[in-house]
Amino acid sequence: MEERILATYRIAASESESRARAEALAAEQSVEMPISAIVDPRVRDEVVARVVSILPHAGDFEVVLGIAPATTGNEASQLVNMLFGNCSLQPEVELVDVAFPVGYEKNFPGPRFGIEGIRALTHVHGRALTCTALKPQGSTVEHLARLAHDFALAGIDVIKDDHGLANQAFSPFSQRVPAVQKAIERANRKTGGNTIYAPTFSGGPSALREQARIAAAEGVSMILIAPMLAGIPSFIELRSELGLPILAHPAFGGANRIAPPLLLARLFRLFGADATIFPNHGGRFSYSRATCLGIASTAREPWANVRPILPVPAGGMTVERVPEMLSGYGEETMLLIGGGLLAAGVQLLEKSREFVRKVAEPMT
Amino acid sequence: MEERILATYRIAASESESRARAEALAAEQSVEMPISAIVDPRVRDEVVARVVSILPHAGDFEVVLGIAPATTGNEASQLVNMLFGNCSLQPEVELVDVAFPVGYEKNFPGPRFGIEGIRALTHVHGRALTCTALKPQGSTVEHLARLAHDFALAGIDVIKDDHGLANQAFSPFSQRVPAVQKAIERANRKTGGNTIYAPTFSGGPSALREQARIAAAEGVSMILIAPMLAGIPSFIELRSELGLPILAHPAFGGANRIAPPLLLARLFRLFGADATIFPNHGGRFSYSRATCLGIASTAREPWANVRPILPVPAGGMTVERVPEMLSGYGEETMLLIGGGLLAAGVQLLEKSREFVRKVAEPMT
Repeated sequence: MEERILATYRIAASESESRARAEALAAEQSVEMPISAIVDPRVRDEVVARVVSILPHAGDFEVVLGIAPATTGNEASQLVNMLFGNCSLQPEVELVDVAFPVGYEKNFPGPRFGIEGIRALTHVHGRALTCTALKPQGSTVEHLARLAHDFALAGIDVIKDDHGLANQAFSPFSQRVPAVQKAIERANRKTGGNTIYAPTFSGGPSALREQARIAAAEGVSMILIAPMLAGIPSFIELRSELGLPILAHPAFGGANRIAPPLLLARLFRLFGADATIFPNHGGRFSYSRATCLGIASTAREPWANVRPILPVPAGGMTVERVPEMLSGYGEETMLLIGGGLLAAGVQLLEKSREFVRKVAEPMT
Repeated sequence: MEERILATYRIAASESESRARAEALAAEQSVEMPISAIVDPRVRDEVVARVVSILPHAGDFEVVLGIAPATTGNEASQLVNMLFGNCSLQPEVELVDVAFPVGYEKNFPGPRFGIEGIRALTHVHGRALTCTALKPQGSTVEHLARLAHDFALAGIDVIKDDHGLANQAFSPFSQRVPAVQKAIERANRKTGGNTIYAPTFSGGPSALREQARIAAAEGVSMILIAPMLAGIPSFIELRSELGLPILAHPAFGGANRIAPPLLLARLFRLFGADATIFPNHGGRFSYSRATCLGIASTAREPWANVRPILPVPAGGMTVERVPEMLSGYGEETMLLIGGGLLAAGVQLLEKSREFVRKVAEPMT
């Protein structure tokens, strides 16, 4: 009998219905038909999801289902389908945790680089990494290249495109990426630094392939992508073909229905992200501190041979919060400040240098 | 000045903060930085989303944003990003409606067949269509083929795979699809009927291409796919390359954060689905009757040259409910009953015939 995937759901319903609701969920997330109508005992025993436990939780209850790994076909979108396909349409159901049987992770690519690979690439050791974003969309290529040059001059480790910079007419990928990459290389030559650029990949499979071709030709050494916008199986195929570290963006993650540590850290990591951006507490989003620390620890926790990945707190952060963020997240982290640097206007270079300094010498 | 995309959001926050929250959302969903730090007046005027209106709504409020079409790059995943990328991470924000400027729809493929094309293919006119599902996953290919044969013998118009039938070892796509297609053709020869098969497409872009190749070789004439699992841009690329009608499945639609009529009807239609499955009221899901009728009317409402598509109510339906469903949805509909037929056990053929009869002669 193969070991099961253990998926934990929180259900907003009264405890008196918990057994019936749990059994219904087990059917919904596996065979999607009345169990009594299943004639083959093998299907009942080996395919139907099992109710492993039901526990009260803050007025509602939590159900752990044992899902047969064979039903996922060892493929990412079908795994997501079995975990949260139909029940995503039931607003009272939330997916809060998943534990995989030992060895199940081998079916997925996982991070190619992880924390170690990103540190090797950026030559950053013994401190947290710094990251900023090129904004706003609508800017000309020249403006974005100038910004990138100044951020690199300040010594920021990773300069990513804003996730809203896709392939619009304002600054098409094929023009923006060479220009920004060259601007950063120019600044690196001045400083002797190793700032790298992570352009936004977006669109369908053939667009992603074309973007990978341009990025390789231009010497780009990292990429940004929102797996939930690209689509998970397309993301995985990109990961398999691409030789660059992947910074995952949470856009369209709708994470109040799938617990953020599960989606943004465990699943994105399993599927191949090397670093994962999430909205830090106290910014523009309402994630709690506990949720954010949960994302960070899930991104880095030991997991067979799956490399740990960088948590990247973001979303309205400021240079002033650097010491507090470092004390919360530690140095196996990349801090991302975008608008908070851009808001400095003509003081952008100075503000960016302050960001770099505060991360390099957290005690000063 | 180009016309804007009008996106309506419901925000669960007090009305006193509505103006500030609306302005913040406009920044979040366009430039994602402090507006005051934007130096280029063109970007402020033409790129930043605008607050068009703020209206109280049942204790909360609704905001209409005017989003610049140029920011979407006329590409599906970037459109979704601008509509609901970052703010999907804000649990208090729900996307309830979107209106596109005239002509914007021309940037997307839209349904290739629509209702008219599906009727031509199935030779069904003057009544609603019938649909059922092959289940459970875990069954052998032989079992599924036998089921399909009996459903076809009963004269059901469309037999789809369960959305949980992907490419698992139980019944791999490459074995299942030829076997089921042949079984249906055998039944069609007996009855003189036109039952068609819609196998589940799933996985990454290269898997989808391989499935399209097999489907074409076997003479399959419709497909089932969950756009949210496949990923929207990958779905669109499939639509562009595939010459078959597409039945969209709502799995992973998480539709309590995006209004179901918007996601399952308007957007899936824009992106190229020909028919869209949704959980009918009074079944295993909690959608209201109004939501379901909203999905149906959005699927069929006039929209430039975008073909109307078939609403497909499903999710725990029974033959007994056919008259009520027909009176609610009318005949431009496909009724999907899966488990409700399978539950008949050895009476499956008889129950399936009753389903077909009730749809053909709704007044009896």
